[in-house]
Amino acid sequence: MRLKESFYRRKLSQIQEELGRRNLDGLFIHQHLNIFYTIGFFHTPTERPICLFIPVAGEPVVFVPKLEEDYVREAGLVPEVEVYFEYPGVVHPIDFMMQRLAARGYGRGRIGFEGAMSVTTRERVGRALPGATWVEAGDIIASLRLVKDPEEIALHRKAAEYADRMVEAGVAFVRERGRAGRFPSENEIAQYVTDWAITRMEEELEEVVVVSMLAGGLVYAGPRSAFPHGLPSRRRVQLGDNLILSLGCAVGAYFAECERTFFIGEPTSEQRRYYEICREAQETGTMALTPGARCCDANRICLDVIRRHGLGDYIKHRQGHGIGITFHEPPWIEDGDTTVLRPGMVVSSEPGIYVPGHGGYRISDTVLVGEQGPERLTRFPRDLQSVIIDL
Amino acid sequence: MRLKESFYRRKLSQIQEELGRRNLDGLFIHQHLNIFYTIGFFHTPTERPICLFIPVAGEPVVFVPKLEEDYVREAGLVPEVEVYFEYPGVVHPIDFMMQRLAARGYGRGRIGFEGAMSVTTRERVGRALPGATWVEAGDIIASLRLVKDPEEIALHRKAAEYADRMVEAGVAFVRERGRAGRFPSENEIAQYVTDWAITRMEEELEEVVVVSMLAGGLVYAGPRSAFPHGLPSRRRVQLGDNLILSLGCAVGAYFAECERTFFIGEPTSEQRRYYEICREAQETGTMALTPGARCCDANRICLDVIRRHGLGDYIKHRQGHGIGITFHEPPWIEDGDTTVLRPGMVVSSEPGIYVPGHGGYRISDTVLVGEQGPERLTRFPRDLQSVIIDL
Repeated sequence: MRLKESFYRRKLSQIQEELGRRNLDGLFIHQHLNIFYTIGFFHTPTERPICLFIPVAGEPVVFVPKLEEDYVREAGLVPEVEVYFEYPGVVHPIDFMMQRLAARGYGRGRIGFEGAMSVTTRERVGRALPGATWVEAGDIIASLRLVKDPEEIALHRKAAEYADRMVEAGVAFVRERGRAGRFPSENEIAQYVTDWAITRMEEELEEVVVVSMLAGGLVYAGPRSAFPHGLPSRRRVQLGDNLILSLGCAVGAYFAECERTFFIGEPTSEQRRYYEICREAQETGTMALTPGARCCDANRICLDVIRRHGLGDYIKHRQGHGIGITFHEPPWIEDGDTTVLRPGMVVSSEPGIYVPGHGGYRISDTVLVGEQGPERLTRFPRDLQSVIIDL
Repeated sequence: MRLKESFYRRKLSQIQEELGRRNLDGLFIHQHLNIFYTIGFFHTPTERPICLFIPVAGEPVVFVPKLEEDYVREAGLVPEVEVYFEYPGVVHPIDFMMQRLAARGYGRGRIGFEGAMSVTTRERVGRALPGATWVEAGDIIASLRLVKDPEEIALHRKAAEYADRMVEAGVAFVRERGRAGRFPSENEIAQYVTDWAITRMEEELEEVVVVSMLAGGLVYAGPRSAFPHGLPSRRRVQLGDNLILSLGCAVGAYFAECERTFFIGEPTSEQRRYYEICREAQETGTMALTPGARCCDANRICLDVIRRHGLGDYIKHRQGHGIGITFHEPPWIEDGDTTVLRPGMVVSSEPGIYVPGHGGYRISDTVLVGEQGPERLTRFPRDLQSVIIDL
């Protein structure tokens, strides 16, 4: 599954309209995911720079090393192409791009650039195209990416289905191995669900587009679950553990994540209590993701549930973040983000409670801000009974 | 396997010496791999900035979000820690870092920064610490990374062993499946060798340190092998194919890659001819990686072999690149890099020939520039007979 040319044509004209409003002659894009977003051409960024120039009118131009020339034809909107041989080159690739822009008549142009550009590259473009005026305009594409179009939401929906099924597959794997007398390690679970998802996607989807990644996950159990950001380890799951499955995947490059905290065997009353508080915070916080609300307010409402239960010291992170062609992107569901939620935004809702020496609790859904209110795209059940893995 | 504190103490004093020479009060490092290189603390970069400040004298200070606080203790050299809560924060994390630097007495300091810093962040640090003087000094760490210490070379050696074994495992897998009557797809081969390597590393190594990645590879066969940079596809290998296995891994974060071009069944005379030219270019180019030679000269000597045989049009990339805690890093074995090779540099030697519609040929070794000359760390044989996969 991937987006059609009509999507990219729409983005192109939205960008060009905005360039016109700002009196810019073009936009110079160096961030690989913004290039992907704009014309559907993906590359893994290396030292060889690949950039895209969108003129205020006409077709986009992409600058690529020879190595990538053939792949440009697979873009959603095939741009004009300028090819340099290699990096670092006798002529530096960025200097080459500036020479080509000059040849195309932009030597004295007003050119937008992304503020994420490095100081070194910014100095280089300034030296190489000294007559041009460079204007920070990274917000043009950032604003577009903030709200998803219906085609993008369809991909998020599909990804959310796979994320749910990854969690189901992980649970089945742990239960089956546990019944056979030997629980798997965190690493084995992570590897199993990742391979499971990739195999299913390859079998079931008409076309598998690998952009950043297809599927992956964090898995941590027992006392390690109290560390919200750990990598899976060799430790085997044990009876009595909390087991956090934090799984995600991308369809057509659009991500979804589904995270649940499971219990291996009957949970203790302490585990039940923490779990229910986490579930309540996630429920309340998710319901607060309504159009018109500010991100910081949803975050406060969500985390206040945990604080009200006296567990404020166990909070280690915000409620959530935007999701799109990256796992983490604006808007941020956090105190410092006053962005107003709009229909078409896709965000995570994932409050957590981390009790040192005991374990962690996190529940995350991928949530679409709909016209009528929040809609969970991931749907694995969250009630206590559904997260007990008994043998 | 990982580096010991003595390595990081040595790097710290080398950096501090250079800061002193340049009359700088400290170095502000924002690139995650440079932070790893300097103190052995790894993180996956996200929107939450993590930065390191190395004062001209005294202990380094790391700035992390609460989520990462616990992991700093696992660093090779445990730094002082300043913790902010979240991103974007009511106070932006970069502003927080500048406030803490001011509190530590650097408000009017001369501070080095890396030119890879974004324009946005550069503007922010300038606003937040207006009395300080910011000086580009990214070359300090870049120069250190260019030449490896003995402990680093030991890790490269171990990684090279695994890279060789990954190629062997891939060949065995293709042969076994072929004999069973059904060749695997490129995807299946890539997944198999990756899982194989990760499993072996976890079994065999005392400690597995995941920094960027553990193991992975590109696999392409038949006409697709003519595209030097493709992702593995669902296409099954066939009798008569060229099969390029381009496999790599990291031990203690230090990489190695081993790439060979195989033939499924007896190669035709055309395949033999292209292969032998590629092999000759790789042999000649590798021998040219001697201390005192310039990178651009080795590259010319290497690619001239291909040109001399009249195949210059089929060259799509340079001879190679440096390898360290990234797969690709300086020096570049390319026309535009006049760096003089020094003992302790580790580079790839990987000329390729890409014949449209027919297939591609590439042989890559990870090569240590030794006192006495080049030493191949990867050793899978390169003679024609050793790369024929017959059933």
